[in-house]
Amino acid sequence: MIIVQKYGGTSVADAERIKNVARRIKKARAECGKVVAVLSAQGDTTDDLKAKAFEISRNPSRRELDMLLATGEQQSAALMAMALHDLGESAVSLNAAQFGLHSTSNYGSARIKRIETERVNMELERGSIVLIAGFQGVNRYGDITTLGRGASDTTAVALAAVLGADRCEIYTDVDGVYTADPRLVPSARKIPRISYEEMLELSSLGAKVLHNRSVELANKYNVKLIVRSSMTEAEGTIVWEGAKMEKMLVSGIAVDDDVSRISIVGVKDEPGVAFKIFSCLAKEKISVDMILQSIGRSKTNDISFTVACDDLSRAIETLKENRDAISWDHIGSIDRIAKLSVIGAGMATNPGVASAVFEALYDVDVNIHMISTSEIRISVLIDVQDAKRAANSIHEKFSSLNVEYAG
Amino acid sequence: MIIVQKYGGTSVADAERIKNVARRIKKARAECGKVVAVLSAQGDTTDDLKAKAFEISRNPSRRELDMLLATGEQQSAALMAMALHDLGESAVSLNAAQFGLHSTSNYGSARIKRIETERVNMELERGSIVLIAGFQGVNRYGDITTLGRGASDTTAVALAAVLGADRCEIYTDVDGVYTADPRLVPSARKIPRISYEEMLELSSLGAKVLHNRSVELANKYNVKLIVRSSMTEAEGTIVWEGAKMEKMLVSGIAVDDDVSRISIVGVKDEPGVAFKIFSCLAKEKISVDMILQSIGRSKTNDISFTVACDDLSRAIETLKENRDAISWDHIGSIDRIAKLSVIGAGMATNPGVASAVFEALYDVDVNIHMISTSEIRISVLIDVQDAKRAANSIHEKFSSLNVEYAG
Repeated sequence: MIIVQKYGGTSVADAERIKNVARRIKKARAECGKVVAVLSAQGDTTDDLKAKAFEISRNPSRRELDMLLATGEQQSAALMAMALHDLGESAVSLNAAQFGLHSTSNYGSARIKRIETERVNMELERGSIVLIAGFQGVNRYGDITTLGRGASDTTAVALAAVLGADRCEIYTDVDGVYTADPRLVPSARKIPRISYEEMLELSSLGAKVLHNRSVELANKYNVKLIVRSSMTEAEGTIVWEGAKMEKMLVSGIAVDDDVSRISIVGVKDEPGVAFKIFSCLAKEKISVDMILQSIGRSKTNDISFTVACDDLSRAIETLKENRDAISWDHIGSIDRIAKLSVIGAGMATNPGVASAVFEALYDVDVNIHMISTSEIRISVLIDVQDAKRAANSIHEKFSSLNVEYAG
Repeated sequence: MIIVQKYGGTSVADAERIKNVARRIKKARAECGKVVAVLSAQGDTTDDLKAKAFEISRNPSRRELDMLLATGEQQSAALMAMALHDLGESAVSLNAAQFGLHSTSNYGSARIKRIETERVNMELERGSIVLIAGFQGVNRYGDITTLGRGASDTTAVALAAVLGADRCEIYTDVDGVYTADPRLVPSARKIPRISYEEMLELSSLGAKVLHNRSVELANKYNVKLIVRSSMTEAEGTIVWEGAKMEKMLVSGIAVDDDVSRISIVGVKDEPGVAFKIFSCLAKEKISVDMILQSIGRSKTNDISFTVACDDLSRAIETLKENRDAISWDHIGSIDRIAKLSVIGAGMATNPGVASAVFEALYDVDVNIHMISTSEIRISVLIDVQDAKRAANSIHEKFSSLNVEYAG
């Protein structure tokens, strides 16, 4: 039996924690036979390296940034191998170039194209524990890419899929998936089992436990995901099709505060404008989230949308470069704003949910900047300083309303 | 015209220094056309990474240590590329796996087997400055090796040879090669030109400016080496066959304090003992330097020799594992001792040099533990705390004796 584990940055932040994780891996090896562990960079390593880059250049090349950042995961993998050797285990660290994780070329947010299994299987057959540097790939030129935020999860799930692993355990600093972020909402409860679909909504909307790409991939290849803490023996949350439960009215609340809002004021009210705006952003690989078009004055419209904070300056630059093609009056932006989302598969058939959300926000005097809804989700943009108050108010409202509430 | 430059760890220790070096590289590019720069890890990075490894394991695997340490140079290369981009230059960083520096498999002190030039030449043809992560290679399995101490120099010289570079400039924290270490001997003088042969003696005996392997390689492929400071505009020292001067009596004094002494007391006085001792050390890739055999009591001998401090515990372990084959009474060791060497091509024909060295040591009351001589060199083992006094006394004696003295 093969199992794949993934340990996040806080789980390997220092020598003591690395030794602690090594003992877990050793135990898993004794119980399961073959273990592949994917490692993130230690603690703040990635942020520290980024800071170094920005000390040198205000706009560092994305290729070179990936070359720099990928070293963090390689260090963790090597250190973990040493810790396992000290426990008498055979272990070997491999970076993406060594075992063959081939990706697209868009540095900073590359996508996995293909994973070779030959080297990993050879090491497993030899009886070694395989320690994989997460977060990274190599493109067709042999250059190092990184797979974007949360990508070590994706590496782990993809490996579990290609290796036919029994399960993929994601070790993190929380002990499972909660109905809301417990740091924001003290009354939040752990969800023991959740379906891919609901987890996908939660994670794509800012619940930072799992990255949505890893959940998509797990869904596609039916990989049984387990989210657990590396610090405790708590059971964690199982994400799996087999874990599908009755459709609940509301399964969780997610807050994403890594959001910037851009407003393009005074664009012409004519066909093709939205296409021009969002195609030039897409060319630059900038992901756009909530989009809202409203009617401005004198036959012009205003178009607002959100991007990740990291992409804000690049997005504005790109728009300015294309001003002739698009044409507008002016551009406004908010550096950081919070997106609060309420998710629940049962929402579609219950029209009362939206009004309950708005009521809960009104109860605590939170102003809403933008609203966007889908069949199983309501998202609102609110000020960052309102996020905690808003999440608690909504959580409380549904805890009392919703007897089927998860947990 | 292609030139290869190498920048040591202190030259790239922080953002300011990296920017400073970037300006130098830009200038070289404007003057020479094609520039390849080999980078060491920043400042104390390698030592910090080693400390991390030793926090986890007292005896970390050499493969994993190389995997860990090689990240330091990759970081420097990526950061330098960013700094050059900011100056408007096209630049690209490459690690050993990417451009193809193939090495033997002995981790920690691998040897260069072959360097591919295709990727580097392609980038140079495109007009890019190429930034190479020094110190590292890949073995036949695609695993990362490091080339041992001072190996970034060797990488630079080897690249200069295969690329047919006009010259190889080694930038370091001193502004050239001196007749003795100026920190030990304040009256030491800079040598403007020196032959490969004399440089080889100096560097192999602990003058830390250039590693002997890089000088050997430069000699073999007739690469013109220039040693300069990255902080000043001073001329530096040219190491080249064309720089050969009249044979001087004494060309320099070198002190190496990275030396441990091992004494094996009471080995049998019979053939094959030395072979047994040194072959088991060679199998472990432990380099042995000065060897002295003396007669002990009751038909046994004592054998003493020196190794690098890093190898001391491994050497003693290896000897103990082979105790049955070798057989001895006991083993003694000195953790750290200084090897002081006096080098000069003219020494062979002047018998007065040795006695002048011993006189200079006697003058300042320095006790000698071991003596070893070659045609153009005298080396003595002395206590570390005596090294400075001894070097100054010898330097002074020859400065007054020897009108041909370098400088």
